[in-house]
Amino acid sequence: MLTIFGDSQSGNCYKVQLLMHHLDIEHVWVHVNILAGETRAPEFLAKNPNGKIPLLQLAAGSYLAESNAILNYLAEGTSYLPKDRLKRAQVLGWQFFEQYSHEPYIAVARFIAKYLGLPEERRKDFEAKQSGGNQALAVMERHLCHHPWFVGDAMTIADISLYAYTHVAHEGGFDLSKYPSINSWIKRIGEHPRHMKMLSR
Amino acid sequence: MLTIFGDSQSGNCYKVQLLMHHLDIEHVWVHVNILAGETRAPEFLAKNPNGKIPLLQLAAGSYLAESNAILNYLAEGTSYLPKDRLKRAQVLGWQFFEQYSHEPYIAVARFIAKYLGLPEERRKDFEAKQSGGNQALAVMERHLCHHPWFVGDAMTIADISLYAYTHVAHEGGFDLSKYPSINSWIKRIGEHPRHMKMLSR
Repeated sequence: MLTIFGDSQSGNCYKVQLLMHHLDIEHVWVHVNILAGETRAPEFLAKNPNGKIPLLQLAAGSYLAESNAILNYLAEGTSYLPKDRLKRAQVLGWQFFEQYSHEPYIAVARFIAKYLGLPEERRKDFEAKQSGGNQALAVMERHLCHHPWFVGDAMTIADISLYAYTHVAHEGGFDLSKYPSINSWIKRIGEHPRHMKMLSR
Repeated sequence: MLTIFGDSQSGNCYKVQLLMHHLDIEHVWVHVNILAGETRAPEFLAKNPNGKIPLLQLAAGSYLAESNAILNYLAEGTSYLPKDRLKRAQVLGWQFFEQYSHEPYIAVARFIAKYLGLPEERRKDFEAKQSGGNQALAVMERHLCHHPWFVGDAMTIADISLYAYTHVAHEGGFDLSKYPSINSWIKRIGEHPRHMKMLSR
């Protein structure tokens, strides 16, 4: 039985939860509270020295870190990860885009606003995230203008990766109404019969 | 014939150059000058809307972005990308670690120091990068203490990804003498018969 260490309110953890729901993968979910510092506790660092969630436990002592690596592992052999060599690399291209050009702006702005309550000393940081986040959304909009999905003609883990923080980007101060193709894509994912919503407080 | 748009002085581009040298892949290298704004020019944005290098051109109109996605594409079917499902995911785990927890600290600190000349208005930013960079190096040291390579028992693209900015981390103010296992690993990679050095001015 697979075990996921995660927090459902983190978009990175939600990615894994959403794919597992789509694929109907039985698993145990162990809640880890980031805000309470549990990812920096010695017993967690023994599992993942980088102190981050989500973390997949495959067997006793065998762990896999990084949300997008976990998605690739779980999606292997399913329609969520194409077999074609170039398409697989394109999926990765969008996932690296997500981690480098999207998440550090959109997820971090959301974290500052939603979880820290936008304290005055973080306002400058929050505002600095807006331009990079809008740049990432513009790149997505440009692609989705001409394509229903990020890679090929069906939903893949590239869509799941990008959906996680994009569909809650308004909580980070981003005005999604400026991006009509992103909105249609968000709706398309939400209407999938195997969709599950992100838990949010 | 494959074409790479890149700048040999960028670690992200060097990753691709190094793997191509190891695999003896014939290609055309088109120099793109980031500092002169060439990645933001309309003709480049038409190729990669995210305006980043390296960029692989596979055929007329067919491009692949993101250094680590390019490595995965090129390494497919070679010993640099294991066939085993878990090992492949572990390679990705280290590559996502590189892009999220390593590059934004180590590469950016190096960029500020080496290419911008550490201007006074960026000093605070430079110093803020030191702690995250040392944290990433500590995670690597802890792994390399017990393993010669990041995944399995031979060099993979996980090593190539992490080598690119780690072996020049001192140019970003990082004291590599604190990390003996990283040093042995850097030496091991440099002694490979198919190694090629990063061009640096």
